Amino acid sequence: MTLAGRYVDFWTLTERALDFALARVPSVDRALRGKLLDAYLTLDAFPDVRATLAQLKAEGTRLAILSNGSPRMLARAVEAAGIGGLLDAVLSVDTVRRYKPRPEVYALVTDTLAVPAADVAFVSSNRWDVMGAVSFGFAAFWVNRSRLPNEYEDFSPLREIPNLAALPAPDAR
Amino acid sequence: MTLAGRYVDFWTLTERALDFALARVPSVDRALRGKLLDAYLTLDAFPDVRATLAQLKAEGTRLAILSNGSPRMLARAVEAAGIGGLLDAVLSVDTVRRYKPRPEVYALVTDTLAVPAADVAFVSSNRWDVMGAVSFGFAAFWVNRSRLPNEYEDFSPLREIPNLAALPAPDAR
Repeated sequence: MTLAGRYVDFWTLTERALDFALARVPSVDRALRGKLLDAYLTLDAFPDVRATLAQLKAEGTRLAILSNGSPRMLARAVEAAGIGGLLDAVLSVDTVRRYKPRPEVYALVTDTLAVPAADVAFVSSNRWDVMGAVSFGFAAFWVNRSRLPNEYEDFSPLREIPNLAALPAPDAR
Repeated sequence: MTLAGRYVDFWTLTERALDFALARVPSVDRALRGKLLDAYLTLDAFPDVRATLAQLKAEGTRLAILSNGSPRMLARAVEAAGIGGLLDAVLSVDTVRRYKPRPEVYALVTDTLAVPAADVAFVSSNRWDVMGAVSFGFAAFWVNRSRLPNEYEDFSPLREIPNLAALPAPDAR
């Protein structure tokens, strides 16, 4: 949709994607629809997330989320993960009505936090998101928990790490 | 890549996608790599394609391909399908170095054939491509051979058809 210059928020896309999947697999009970959607609003964070963010925060690092999710989804996810008190900003693409990896989305970080791109350590488990971040000029880290093969060879992360605890300290990057 | 403002041609992306798939499924013999790539260059057309194009051509309709494929891939596909003599244009996104569904790609048709968007009957089996074409202003037909569920409810085709033979004649649209 973003490529076509159109925008539909991520919650609506999530509902539509689930409806498509349910239509393709009619043997699945459609009564699960509400439960599955609710589950997406209360996702746990991986166990290394809170400790790493707390340590970075204690060291004076500013922390932000930049997500394709809608503002309501992000508020619920932050609440479910119990990390609201650690974050300086929760940024949704909904502000610019286009999705990552469009550069306008990554610019939300540099604009909101008034920081040069090269000073941003961007961390994602999505290799395509790391590609977009590298293309924009962030120092990017790829959290590859499931040991996927590499992609986007021309847009390599600064480092590939197995989890957030392995993120190097700011002065060691 | 297009969302990030970058371009890599479709043949290279095809090679990389296959390499990713082979890396994810190590039990597949990597010696198949060359054979699989070659097969993609010599794809058959569905049996209804040549007859429908020949009839449209006989009625005076101009015919063109608009594809994300690289020029070499398109030349080989046209040759394999035996439809070269029926086509007025074979247009590759490689000219504008961005992929469908970016509007600049659909504009290759209106620019090259000097025809208004509303006069173009755009036919695709990819629902996302039909979305982009509808968004651009083409009269679009979705060839849904495998009876997939519908998507992009805000960007509906003029008609969904089971194959090319069901395409309505130009004056019956």
